[in-house]
Amino acid sequence: MKLGDLGEAALIRKIRDRFGALASGLQVGIGDDAAVIEMPAGQALIFCSDLVAENTHFIRDLHPSDSIAYKAIAANVSDVSAMGGTASHFLLSVAAPPELDWSWFEGFLQGVENACAAFDVSLAGGDSSSSDLIFLDVSMVGSVRSGGAVRRSGAKPGDKIYVTGMLGSSALGLERLKSGQKNDPAVKRHLYPEPRNNVGLAVADQAHSMIDVSDGLSTDLTHILVESQVSARIYKDRLPAWPGTESHHVLNGGEEYELIIVSPDLPMEIDKVPITCIGEIIDSGTDHQLFLIDGNRESVVYPLGWQHFNKL
Amino acid sequence: MKLGDLGEAALIRKIRDRFGALASGLQVGIGDDAAVIEMPAGQALIFCSDLVAENTHFIRDLHPSDSIAYKAIAANVSDVSAMGGTASHFLLSVAAPPELDWSWFEGFLQGVENACAAFDVSLAGGDSSSSDLIFLDVSMVGSVRSGGAVRRSGAKPGDKIYVTGMLGSSALGLERLKSGQKNDPAVKRHLYPEPRNNVGLAVADQAHSMIDVSDGLSTDLTHILVESQVSARIYKDRLPAWPGTESHHVLNGGEEYELIIVSPDLPMEIDKVPITCIGEIIDSGTDHQLFLIDGNRESVVYPLGWQHFNKL
Repeated sequence: MKLGDLGEAALIRKIRDRFGALASGLQVGIGDDAAVIEMPAGQALIFCSDLVAENTHFIRDLHPSDSIAYKAIAANVSDVSAMGGTASHFLLSVAAPPELDWSWFEGFLQGVENACAAFDVSLAGGDSSSSDLIFLDVSMVGSVRSGGAVRRSGAKPGDKIYVTGMLGSSALGLERLKSGQKNDPAVKRHLYPEPRNNVGLAVADQAHSMIDVSDGLSTDLTHILVESQVSARIYKDRLPAWPGTESHHVLNGGEEYELIIVSPDLPMEIDKVPITCIGEIIDSGTDHQLFLIDGNRESVVYPLGWQHFNKL
Repeated sequence: MKLGDLGEAALIRKIRDRFGALASGLQVGIGDDAAVIEMPAGQALIFCSDLVAENTHFIRDLHPSDSIAYKAIAANVSDVSAMGGTASHFLLSVAAPPELDWSWFEGFLQGVENACAAFDVSLAGGDSSSSDLIFLDVSMVGSVRSGGAVRRSGAKPGDKIYVTGMLGSSALGLERLKSGQKNDPAVKRHLYPEPRNNVGLAVADQAHSMIDVSDGLSTDLTHILVESQVSARIYKDRLPAWPGTESHHVLNGGEEYELIIVSPDLPMEIDKVPITCIGEIIDSGTDHQLFLIDGNRESVVYPLGWQHFNKL
């Protein structure tokens, strides 16, 4: 069966049958003009979105459809966590060609269900459309203690720079997926990332600044430096590299969804996730720069992570 | 200049320069992992999204780029209004080809700015990506008195059915736009719709049920009937038809963003917008049906408004 045989009304009915039960905090869910959500008292609203375009973020014949949904939701959970907040409800907007096989969509909805279970978030509504290419956009709301959101702009000279988990697996996983190694652990990390939501929440009061690695360490840490008007030094031998990765995977690989946390002091493990100190924040000269120390060599790291629209 | 000559970082900088000032209620806006918004006390969160796909919702050479942004924001404001709430902040996710001319994008951002001014809403963030086709998704948050959201499910037999403004202009406007009549008032309505946000808010306490006309009167009123488990009778001679429209424009034309309001009694005008009683809610037989009374003829109206994925 094709999506066009089903039609939009039947598609929405199927989604509502599967996801329509009112989750905690949801007063109005799928099937009205908008969702209505009760916000916890004393909390501010966190609000973010992540767009996924066919042939840019995924290849239809390469990426399983459940992973496309799973990763889009994970990316949003990661963004909320990088503010020190808790994700709760999301909308899913999806455009797809009428000739798309229904089995693709069933896999996609399974990925939505798996992500809801993994991250304790609920589908609250969305929008659907036909289109020549598959597009999706997930928008997520969550909450954070009022006044307690962790910004990109709070890093101070003398702070230490930490990262969760290991880096480089997603970029390596994509290479291995393309070469047919479907069962490699790095491929699994590329397809089904693990946002560090528990860590983000746990460090919210100790972190001066935080960001998640969505575009690559070099690019995302530079965002902190620019917003905080500081520079930083990181040490090559301290970078927690995924086995088999090379330097460019670790420094520039995106879609990691690990957290970069800037704080005076953090433990070496939080909620079973290893936390590695990779360097420190220093005063800026004229530019806000990232220096890499490799033995007794020091070099400047430019943000070479993923940037859309740029000519390749 | 092409979008690809500019690059994503410069694009985001331009958007931030233009829209980055912190609007009322916005604690963190463009340029962090997520937006942070202070919610008014005693209010529930309203949350909705609307996606716009090239060649489905618009034609690149036909629709001015400012109207594409304007209409996507208007559609969300309309959805929030149809719940009896007030829209406040939105995220904009946009995918576009690197070879797209920057002038297209400048027009698009002008449409965003115009919509912000017209509807008193603020851009709080979003996402961007390269893509072979233009795609956008607007997700909007707003607020409504806790427990006061107006549902599709509240219509009761004996209630009257009202619509704001006039119907059929957007469908007629699209036809006229395609035939080159760019300055026709119906074309203006198609490109720059007027969501009835003041009316939605004003009737929130009197409305038993409400929906906005995004897919067409026949389809959207049927949503109320199905959700409320009732039927309805509407009168052909009472339908407020836009001059020059035919019956199919009025009954099935989408993207009107007028409100269908079900209430025991409403005035004939609210905030200078005409309010027309077009019929009444009646008990359902076995099906929840919409009947059209034309003189002494009665016929069943099927939901023939816009439905995605269906084969045309």
